[in-house]
Amino acid sequence: MSVLTTEQPDAVPAGEEPPDTGERHRLTAVTGLAALSLDAMASVAYGPEAIVLVLAAAGAHGLGFTMPVTLAIAALLAVLVASYRQVIAAFPDGGGSYAVAKTHLGARTSLVAAASLVLDYVLNVAVAVTAGVAALTSAFPSLYGDRLWLCLAVLALITGVNLRGIVESAKAFIVPTVVFVGSVFVLIVVGLFRSHPVSTVTAAGHASVVADNASSVGALLLLKAFASGCAALTGVEAIANAVPSFRVPRVRRAQRAEVALGAVLGLMLIGLSVLIGRFHLQPVEGVTVLAQLADAALGHNWAFYVIQFATMILLALSANTSFGGLPVLLKLLARDNYAPHVFALKADRQVHRHGVLALAVVSAALLVFSGGDTNTLVPMFAIGVFVGFTIAQVGMVRHWRLERGRGRRGKALLNGFGAVLTGVAAVVVTASKFEEGAWLIVIALPLLVAAFETVHRAYGRIGERLGLGRIPEVPHRERSLVVVPVSTLSRLTSEALTAATSLGDEVRAVTVCYPDPEDRAHLHALERAWADWDPGVPLVRLSCQRRTLGRPIAAYVREVAAAEPGTQVTVLIPEAEPERLWQRLLQNQRGAVVAHAVRRETDAVICRLRFRL
Amino acid sequence: MSVLTTEQPDAVPAGEEPPDTGERHRLTAVTGLAALSLDAMASVAYGPEAIVLVLAAAGAHGLGFTMPVTLAIAALLAVLVASYRQVIAAFPDGGGSYAVAKTHLGARTSLVAAASLVLDYVLNVAVAVTAGVAALTSAFPSLYGDRLWLCLAVLALITGVNLRGIVESAKAFIVPTVVFVGSVFVLIVVGLFRSHPVSTVTAAGHASVVADNASSVGALLLLKAFASGCAALTGVEAIANAVPSFRVPRVRRAQRAEVALGAVLGLMLIGLSVLIGRFHLQPVEGVTVLAQLADAALGHNWAFYVIQFATMILLALSANTSFGGLPVLLKLLARDNYAPHVFALKADRQVHRHGVLALAVVSAALLVFSGGDTNTLVPMFAIGVFVGFTIAQVGMVRHWRLERGRGRRGKALLNGFGAVLTGVAAVVVTASKFEEGAWLIVIALPLLVAAFETVHRAYGRIGERLGLGRIPEVPHRERSLVVVPVSTLSRLTSEALTAATSLGDEVRAVTVCYPDPEDRAHLHALERAWADWDPGVPLVRLSCQRRTLGRPIAAYVREVAAAEPGTQVTVLIPEAEPERLWQRLLQNQRGAVVAHAVRRETDAVICRLRFRL
Repeated sequence: MSVLTTEQPDAVPAGEEPPDTGERHRLTAVTGLAALSLDAMASVAYGPEAIVLVLAAAGAHGLGFTMPVTLAIAALLAVLVASYRQVIAAFPDGGGSYAVAKTHLGARTSLVAAASLVLDYVLNVAVAVTAGVAALTSAFPSLYGDRLWLCLAVLALITGVNLRGIVESAKAFIVPTVVFVGSVFVLIVVGLFRSHPVSTVTAAGHASVVADNASSVGALLLLKAFASGCAALTGVEAIANAVPSFRVPRVRRAQRAEVALGAVLGLMLIGLSVLIGRFHLQPVEGVTVLAQLADAALGHNWAFYVIQFATMILLALSANTSFGGLPVLLKLLARDNYAPHVFALKADRQVHRHGVLALAVVSAALLVFSGGDTNTLVPMFAIGVFVGFTIAQVGMVRHWRLERGRGRRGKALLNGFGAVLTGVAAVVVTASKFEEGAWLIVIALPLLVAAFETVHRAYGRIGERLGLGRIPEVPHRERSLVVVPVSTLSRLTSEALTAATSLGDEVRAVTVCYPDPEDRAHLHALERAWADWDPGVPLVRLSCQRRTLGRPIAAYVREVAAAEPGTQVTVLIPEAEPERLWQRLLQNQRGAVVAHAVRRETDAVICRLRFRL
Repeated sequence: MSVLTTEQPDAVPAGEEPPDTGERHRLTAVTGLAALSLDAMASVAYGPEAIVLVLAAAGAHGLGFTMPVTLAIAALLAVLVASYRQVIAAFPDGGGSYAVAKTHLGARTSLVAAASLVLDYVLNVAVAVTAGVAALTSAFPSLYGDRLWLCLAVLALITGVNLRGIVESAKAFIVPTVVFVGSVFVLIVVGLFRSHPVSTVTAAGHASVVADNASSVGALLLLKAFASGCAALTGVEAIANAVPSFRVPRVRRAQRAEVALGAVLGLMLIGLSVLIGRFHLQPVEGVTVLAQLADAALGHNWAFYVIQFATMILLALSANTSFGGLPVLLKLLARDNYAPHVFALKADRQVHRHGVLALAVVSAALLVFSGGDTNTLVPMFAIGVFVGFTIAQVGMVRHWRLERGRGRRGKALLNGFGAVLTGVAAVVVTASKFEEGAWLIVIALPLLVAAFETVHRAYGRIGERLGLGRIPEVPHRERSLVVVPVSTLSRLTSEALTAATSLGDEVRAVTVCYPDPEDRAHLHALERAWADWDPGVPLVRLSCQRRTLGRPIAAYVREVAAAEPGTQVTVLIPEAEPERLWQRLLQNQRGAVVAHAVRRETDAVICRLRFRL
């Protein structure tokens, strides 16, 4: 996933970010690799599995093609890493596909890049959570039936943590990443020394889904397997997005980290596919491929459980990065008037919640839709990623054409080659997975772009109406009339009238009465008490046949405003605020009802005065 | 269920009720029976079923006791009807158990009655919805697997209708009630002429749950069957609650309707139990007893479907009566300061929503908890009803002791007998069904009573603090200072300063700035534009290290208020209000963030000015 940009620590903390950190706190090539490779490494947990699942349709014969397909993906990875080395050099301020496209390819293309990123972030949450839970249920098969609930629980946990606005340092990700990568390499090395699986206990009791007949392996099937496996490439752009987080010389260090990422990821993919072939692994429902390999290579012992837990935690953290990344992207979009401005307010926890909750709701919907199954979601996942890759590479080609410098032609060629490869991959992924879910992305992507553009136009009109950029009229003083709704006489009424007389040149108290005898008696008592009290403010009686509180007051306010143009009409609503939170339930909501009606039906200013008990 | 009081048409319509209706529109004994017997009649759909299900535990031998158990319930019904005839005479203004207990048994007992009524209303919704859906799935067995979703859909429909505040006339209930009762009698009469079931097609393919071994039928089992079957008696109090809805002579007409209700209900129960014995009916999963009887008596043809649909509709309407009845009860409780006052505001749709939504949420929780199964809910249902019956009867005994008149001793005896019977029934139902769910009621009932009393005490304290009933201080004028948060210069700023200068003796605009270079540039631009504009209002710069908007403003307001005691500080928050609803999403929420912080941290009055675009 394309997360973990420089701006993340700035966006997550909800008004709590630390002061600017010095060079000392920045990343070296090694720590940068560990800190920023989380998403890429985590995709090892579902990428090879996606390949095996497709090839299994052609039986044991089909599974024999795991290695060639993995090699093709590794080759694509090599090209991508080389391309992104150049992106790092060209955009040392962090070159996400949105930024590259905005600079070189125009607004519309940058919006396509943005939309594909938004879809990625959302799908990343869903895929990582389901894959993490699959790692858990592989270790504890009795939990398999409840996997959807487990997924939703993990999502709720991540959402809760993010709502609290905990500051996430990218460095916190180093330990689980190292543990995961370390265990995968141990698994591979030990596995290479075995000729037979040491244990297949996890596969017991489950029906194998591999057909015995060796059906023919067509080109379409291989393309499909390739397309599915491309999910393993998500996340290789993260380092390029985060160049400013590195220590000087930033570009060199980032480039080294990128290359190391490619090497580690490629080795893991190839190593796992060798083991898949060696152990004649077949997909088993309820047990992930990684779990089967761990079982076969290390045996069903503590090492197996360590790998499952490391995978689970890494994937949960990988889901978490979306919660850091999406707000940053939305902030950029909001600054350019493509997304609601609320996302551009970096401040205040309250605001931050909107983005986190929206992401949580959409991800939860995807989890329910997929039934908690990773392989239902993977077909949708890779499309957005490859669209983003392609746009970034095409933008880079443009970039080299404008740049003068040594070898720019060669660099343009490399990025162009990368663009063609990733573009073809995007088309292959979409076409081969269209019916399995890719159609959803094909619909959602243009809709998102259209939404961005609609928002942009609306902001244009609003800015026009508000006269933004022009010096407005000079304010002037008007006569002020304050209307105070009243229903009983208490210290609250007294406070409200004190505030009202301070604010207004004229104050009128109003009370609504209904034809009901009980209500009339209440009114007469109020009027008598008012006369006794004599606060120097008239009490206006608003008769109403129907049992409604807000409307007669709103109608009176409208009437007064129409009768006295040039008068500033304010409605002051007094409310008692109880000392304890639960006692808010005891408030009669009259204030809210009146405020709602006045707000909807008049242009009056609404003042709410709270009297603390 | 104890619903359909006189006040219902007054409570449902949410500020839309018709003017006072004349005598002509009131009920006769016949229309009253039809209009108010809905709940009682509907319970025929689940009462006999509950008996059969218990007795089936003892095999075919046990099922032979259906008739004696039904006769015991019919006898209890006769005593209840005779007792309620007297309640009608004694409380011609409508004598719900809460009203009777409040008059004769003191506050605590009336709260127990109220709590049992609240539980009844909630359970009535859940039981009626599940039973209605069971009628539907008996007709269309393929829907059986989705019964929980169907239940939730029906609940959503009823909730939606009630949120819209549609006026429900009790008379609208006449047609479905008549159709249902008519079809049940046709079923019974036709069934009596058959010696063998004409069709058992609905039972085909389902496993019978009756054990073949004739195990012994113990007293405990019979008590359990009796307790379960008592659910059929819910609703007999509805007529007594609604005496004022009848045409004069009200008491006589209501008494006649009550007796007729008892006769019809008793005949239906006995008739159905005769058929159960004659057709050797056994409980079948997924098919209600009523559906099996319809099948056996009338055949699996259009008549069968008519009965299923009539049952379904009647039960849905029966659930609907809770939505009318609970608000009335809550209003009475709120007037006595036992429930939040929001329930006593008869007006305005907004307020009405609280009660409807609360009832819907609790009922939905019960539906999910029961998995959409009626027989999981029935054990809980009858307890509250019988507690209410008992309290009403005991109150009546007290009533007759205070009353002077002919035969008051005999009347007191009858009510006393009724009290003992219903009291015993309450104990039997609770004890025999304790583990199946009755424990929930045993916990919930005292908790509810405690909640009512806590609310009462809190209102006492709040009233004390507000000085209710005492003449408050006379209001006085203070110097007024208005603070206006500003972030850019636009027509909105101009409007806000016009309003502020009209309201305040002094106005200060404030803007928050952060150390970020981008933010500082924005601030300088604003300060330059402000100087050019020269609105006659100073612009105060509030520096803040952390990215938070609300707190620095709240801190400034606190500071100003502390520095100038005797000054009325008002914060005026300007907000642009877009023309279309969806464009509200585009608002930046700065206003809400500032209002929230000022509200939480200061005592200032908050003014919100909306500028319509």
